[in-house]
Amino acid sequence: MTDEAPPEGSPIAAERDAVTALAPDYVVRLREWLSIPSIGTDPAHHPDVGRSAEWLAEALRADGWPTVEVWDGGPALPAVYAHWPAAEPDAPTVLVYGHHDVQPVDPIELWRHPPFEPTLVGDELFARGASDDKGQVAMHLLGLRAHLAATGRMSPAVSVKLLVEGEEESGSPHILELIRAHRDRLACDLVVVTDTAVFNRDAITVVTGQRGLVEAEVTFTSGTMDLHSGRFGGAVPNPAVELAKLVAALHDDDGRVAVPGFYDDVRLPSDVERADFAGLPFDEAAWLAGPGAGVTEATGEAGWSSLERTWVRPTAEVNGLVAGYTGPGVKTIIPHRASAKLSFRLVPDQRPEKIRDLVRAFVDAHTPSAVRAEVRFGGASEPYAAPTDHPATLAVRDALRAAFEQEVRFTRAGGSGPASALHTGLGVATVYFGVGLPDDRIHAPNERVVVPFLLRGAEALAYLWRALPDRMRARRGSDAT
Amino acid sequence: MTDEAPPEGSPIAAERDAVTALAPDYVVRLREWLSIPSIGTDPAHHPDVGRSAEWLAEALRADGWPTVEVWDGGPALPAVYAHWPAAEPDAPTVLVYGHHDVQPVDPIELWRHPPFEPTLVGDELFARGASDDKGQVAMHLLGLRAHLAATGRMSPAVSVKLLVEGEEESGSPHILELIRAHRDRLACDLVVVTDTAVFNRDAITVVTGQRGLVEAEVTFTSGTMDLHSGRFGGAVPNPAVELAKLVAALHDDDGRVAVPGFYDDVRLPSDVERADFAGLPFDEAAWLAGPGAGVTEATGEAGWSSLERTWVRPTAEVNGLVAGYTGPGVKTIIPHRASAKLSFRLVPDQRPEKIRDLVRAFVDAHTPSAVRAEVRFGGASEPYAAPTDHPATLAVRDALRAAFEQEVRFTRAGGSGPASALHTGLGVATVYFGVGLPDDRIHAPNERVVVPFLLRGAEALAYLWRALPDRMRARRGSDAT
Repeated sequence: MTDEAPPEGSPIAAERDAVTALAPDYVVRLREWLSIPSIGTDPAHHPDVGRSAEWLAEALRADGWPTVEVWDGGPALPAVYAHWPAAEPDAPTVLVYGHHDVQPVDPIELWRHPPFEPTLVGDELFARGASDDKGQVAMHLLGLRAHLAATGRMSPAVSVKLLVEGEEESGSPHILELIRAHRDRLACDLVVVTDTAVFNRDAITVVTGQRGLVEAEVTFTSGTMDLHSGRFGGAVPNPAVELAKLVAALHDDDGRVAVPGFYDDVRLPSDVERADFAGLPFDEAAWLAGPGAGVTEATGEAGWSSLERTWVRPTAEVNGLVAGYTGPGVKTIIPHRASAKLSFRLVPDQRPEKIRDLVRAFVDAHTPSAVRAEVRFGGASEPYAAPTDHPATLAVRDALRAAFEQEVRFTRAGGSGPASALHTGLGVATVYFGVGLPDDRIHAPNERVVVPFLLRGAEALAYLWRALPDRMRARRGSDAT
Repeated sequence: MTDEAPPEGSPIAAERDAVTALAPDYVVRLREWLSIPSIGTDPAHHPDVGRSAEWLAEALRADGWPTVEVWDGGPALPAVYAHWPAAEPDAPTVLVYGHHDVQPVDPIELWRHPPFEPTLVGDELFARGASDDKGQVAMHLLGLRAHLAATGRMSPAVSVKLLVEGEEESGSPHILELIRAHRDRLACDLVVVTDTAVFNRDAITVVTGQRGLVEAEVTFTSGTMDLHSGRFGGAVPNPAVELAKLVAALHDDDGRVAVPGFYDDVRLPSDVERADFAGLPFDEAAWLAGPGAGVTEATGEAGWSSLERTWVRPTAEVNGLVAGYTGPGVKTIIPHRASAKLSFRLVPDQRPEKIRDLVRAFVDAHTPSAVRAEVRFGGASEPYAAPTDHPATLAVRDALRAAFEQEVRFTRAGGSGPASALHTGLGVATVYFGVGLPDDRIHAPNERVVVPFLLRGAEALAYLWRALPDRMRARRGSDAT
């Protein structure tokens, strides 16, 4: 199945030609959308998030989507919902997830073009959100129109629903509320998450999972004020020293997380995934060095490659440390308080609630009697792994192979996202379709999208919508046996 | 010797009466001096440091000191020098050290009276500098006049020189330059440092040493920018984690500093000192709890008491730690840099230069290959221990015993000061004479001096100047044998 050609009789050239014909209009419209600074993490830009939602709704209506709604009544920033049903009553329903909020633009002085004045340089379109995620949402609009144009249909072969939220860059805090409030509208047979990247231009890949996240802040306190290190030094507890001991105990000598029970529920990646990872053209030195990172040596859990360490192995990291005097020069004090911000990346089937309990117990075990410990947990998200043998996963892979004309492998993503919430909240298989590039500089100055690359993505989507009814039907057939 | 009464034939009452008679005028003058905000650490107050020096010079002239100079030509803030020679050509020369700069007053809102509007409440005089160190310098002026009045002499029995510097609260950065520039004027047989406290009101003590200090800042760096903890977490070095390991390795399980060679040159306190320390009425719980410290449990090097840990044992402390994101909420980064401010308190005969070398080697040994380490050393000062069997030490003890009418023990001070620089720079024995109280709240809001206590100190000085020629002569005699 995975090696077969695109569905027989498909005039592949028709999809490509349709994308090519429609593309100029979409690039013009995307530039308009990208000029709206929908920075969801900045309350000053919340009106822009609303304008961005309205812009998208208008674009969808102009494209002919029968149902288009802006959801802005609840606590969430405005989200856009749209539905273009298939004519066939037994056609599967696919919910596409994306987002229209964008990252902040600091440091602004490093941008070569103003981040909200989209600028085409050769085939690259520079703007905040060009790749993450407005460009990829626009790719879906184009992909659907190309599907219709190439097949001559008046409605798509699958019922396509769109959910484009406005809070992804804030950690999607209301995604489960959105799902609960609009359960009927969002009902579907499959979720397609479009907010990820391929491995690189020459190694097109399908993401099959993201890591979860548990955030914690540990604070050690002794007494109520900093003490003079001359008068008291040597005889009273130093919370900074004690906290350093706790942090030092987080990993064993093999780089494994030393929180007891941490690995109990870890599911190993499948053989096909490990083989795919090993087959990727991974240049570790280049990955460590750039862009701008300048790291010179990989480290981590013994027995796993760098890709495996970031994709399928859980971690404990220190995101921040602070104690005592941190300004210029010297202040000879013994701090009375020290804090560490910790984050734990989780993989299937670790559960945030259980990891929180283990972390709390670990902190208790590493708190000397002379200091008081406080653990505050921040946000959490579940890890998620898509089924690698699901017909939708394989259909995505085949569609990408047809469009990009190359072998397509599985990868994972090390970060966290709403896929697990969508999967849990909607109760259906959730797969990834994303064609960002690792050098798109998302979350960084000079974000861009490579326009021809985005068009190939739209072409792949056109193949996907055409092929999916048969692929899903085969699944339902096999489910029924 | 140590148990003998004050020198025979001394009409003790004469010194006490003289202090009582002269005191009101000195309290009035001290209040005037304390109204000058000579905060040496704040450049905005440097003119006030100059005014404070001029005020002191004028007061000394009014008191009859034959030589009075303000030294303000060099890089140091203005210092005051004065000399009142003895008539006897073979009288010993004593250089008294004090300072007229004061600590900042933050947090100002906690003061019950404005810090530079000296306020008498009962027998307490509240003002910044009342105890540290203007009050104790004024005590010297009064003590000398009482000595003259009580003995009927026109000049003191010892040649008294005064050096009152303006940079002690800044760490006396130019003290060695001052000594070098004025070596002839400062030549003496003995230095008396007046800038310390007794154990408490009911346990009068003589300080016999202060700890030295080495300041260091260790920075670990990996790459050039913070990395996303999802994308890179688990596969790249985390300088915060590595630095925590270094800090955790600073002490062994017995609370000893684990820097190899650190204890090589440590001189143990004398038996008489350890016996004196053990005999002090030390309430450990109260010491830990107050004022405002709220520490609940002593910790430190095994085998030593809290007083010994702070007085005669060296330490390694963390004064500050910082890495990554330390603001509110969460930022899921791997910091590219982490820094720790460390300070090492030294005891005789540890040398700052050697300790720096050992610390550098320790950091090298604890720097994993994946991170770069930088060690920057800040200020340093030598530890100092006064000879406990020196006739001047014993004379100070006897003078205090006569004035305060109680047994007097030896203590040390855990902090650092210029005693070692004075001892080294001038090449003579250096002893401490200070009658601050531990609850004078020096360096804190509501600093005060207990006036009757200060007067007892002046009385003790009057005894000291009278007794010192014979005591020193005995020493010179014994040195000659």
